[in-house]
Amino acid sequence: MNAIMKRLLSVSIIAAILWVGISVPVFAADDPLPSWNDGPAKQAIIAFVKETTNQAGPKFVPPEERIATFDQDGTLWVEHPMYTQVMYCLERVPAVVKAKPRLSKVQPFKTVLSGNREAMAKLSMKDLEKILMATLTGMTVDEFNAEVKKWIATATHPRWNRPYTELVYQPMLEVMQYLRANGYKTYIVTGGGQDFVRQYSERVYGIPPEQVVGTAGGTRYGYAKDGKPFLTKEPKLLLNDNNAGKPEGIHLMIGRRPCAAFGNSTGDRQMLEYTKAGEGTRLSMLVLHDDGEREYAYGPAERLPNTKVGTFTQALYDEAKKNGWTVISMKNDWKRLFAFEP
Amino acid sequence: MNAIMKRLLSVSIIAAILWVGISVPVFAADDPLPSWNDGPAKQAIIAFVKETTNQAGPKFVPPEERIATFDQDGTLWVEHPMYTQVMYCLERVPAVVKAKPRLSKVQPFKTVLSGNREAMAKLSMKDLEKILMATLTGMTVDEFNAEVKKWIATATHPRWNRPYTELVYQPMLEVMQYLRANGYKTYIVTGGGQDFVRQYSERVYGIPPEQVVGTAGGTRYGYAKDGKPFLTKEPKLLLNDNNAGKPEGIHLMIGRRPCAAFGNSTGDRQMLEYTKAGEGTRLSMLVLHDDGEREYAYGPAERLPNTKVGTFTQALYDEAKKNGWTVISMKNDWKRLFAFEP
Repeated sequence: MNAIMKRLLSVSIIAAILWVGISVPVFAADDPLPSWNDGPAKQAIIAFVKETTNQAGPKFVPPEERIATFDQDGTLWVEHPMYTQVMYCLERVPAVVKAKPRLSKVQPFKTVLSGNREAMAKLSMKDLEKILMATLTGMTVDEFNAEVKKWIATATHPRWNRPYTELVYQPMLEVMQYLRANGYKTYIVTGGGQDFVRQYSERVYGIPPEQVVGTAGGTRYGYAKDGKPFLTKEPKLLLNDNNAGKPEGIHLMIGRRPCAAFGNSTGDRQMLEYTKAGEGTRLSMLVLHDDGEREYAYGPAERLPNTKVGTFTQALYDEAKKNGWTVISMKNDWKRLFAFEP
Repeated sequence: MNAIMKRLLSVSIIAAILWVGISVPVFAADDPLPSWNDGPAKQAIIAFVKETTNQAGPKFVPPEERIATFDQDGTLWVEHPMYTQVMYCLERVPAVVKAKPRLSKVQPFKTVLSGNREAMAKLSMKDLEKILMATLTGMTVDEFNAEVKKWIATATHPRWNRPYTELVYQPMLEVMQYLRANGYKTYIVTGGGQDFVRQYSERVYGIPPEQVVGTAGGTRYGYAKDGKPFLTKEPKLLLNDNNAGKPEGIHLMIGRRPCAAFGNSTGDRQMLEYTKAGEGTRLSMLVLHDDGEREYAYGPAERLPNTKVGTFTQALYDEAKKNGWTVISMKNDWKRLFAFEP
């Protein structure tokens, strides 16, 4: 290269940066997944992205078909000792009882108000459902959204004493960013409440509300006294986004089969099967909670007592191995778990 | 500006163009809505876009909140003499009867098979529902998708003898493109079948399947003999995306209130109300079919006989005027209706 060309080129580079500012594509760092140890899981993710975005290759996926779905609880953030949304519902009970004082004498509200943790741990699924219905329905959509936003901003996890939203797995955030940088639309597909997760998904995961698929109830359109319309959350289940409900919910809300799916429990099994059964290259990954020191161990080898969260059974592990899903070992594959760790 | 600066600047511009190629923003043509006559409707659209995208102005809307929703039948394409999807269902009847011969002796299938147009025009809503259930459910999602794609590629409108997909209103395509060029996410929110519209929405409107909200039935996850999972379309209504069902469906599928909404009938009333009732600048527009020559006239002043499609009543027209919705006069506001017109 001669001197004039060199000078022109260096002027060009500076000029390009000055002139286009934000339009210059951000070049990914050498390692798009710095919180991952090298190993089969990391390699599977990188190979998947390279193959499906290589226009000249046989496994190319057109940009509009690039869909990736992520379970939330236990896949994107900590789900122990209890789902965050269940914590929210329990902590909302006093406010609900204040508005409807007769509930204070009725089970299971009486037990929740007592604060007796042992008694609360024994609540049945039916009791829990009553609590969920009372705390998640009956109010306007705007009221609910405001309550959740307020709560999630201050509530903290009992073990780490940090907001739940900081207990997001940094390696998974990197996977989402890496996929998005390569033209993938990332979705949350959660058994948790769609309306609940939508209140923080954009800030925490970079996923907009319209890309959150979750368990969803109906709403009812009505008018206030001043004629303004509003929506009320109804105690009517539209979509139970667990197990077979996950592919069904994906069909309802997205209308395409994902190219990649990430889960951690039997509730994700059908989503991972459905994803992997598509034509071409598909990636199904299963997070194994085998890190009792940095987080919790409740994989097929070890079980937490009294666990009510979705379980990673030996049968699921066997299906993963048989069907070519990649198991992510939290202990071995993740260099660090949380962004606040050094 | 001195000569060196000038030279540097001109090198910069060329360099910027050379270096960033595709990243340079495409500047809109002088007129983003060339198929619109100048008038209050066109002005309302342009003012809305300018105000909501002007970062320094008081009506700025952050890009992630830019959502615009469009009814389909009668708003984006011709809905007369019958909804296109109803045509599909009627034309599918012979194939359904072939698979289930006992239906040939049963009403309303017998009438449809007779081909007697007068008798068909008299079918009740209940009859129509039976036909819809028989032709839209019971098959796998993949089978249904393939059938619709095949049909829509060849079926033609009786008046124009052109594919239905060519009877899309060019002025509305321009509005969608203009909104998207300004950071808006465009959605179809249709009373028609979500799965049906998704088969051509990307090709015809530039709207991907995941941005189609429509009347939706449930699906059921199951396994083929070889173990492959698949989804079957069930005769179970999840979302009736008409009237109050439109804002309810928007909440379910998008989770945000639209900034702009476009409709043409009483079935769109609640969507237009809900949109307009949001804070800040909102745009609600109503297409008035007042062009009996180039299309059809069935506004509040004139009614087509035997019309079964959503109606634009005088009450709706009055509500539009009262609530500040903008009425689009097909006759006066649209320079041309279809792309194939000169």
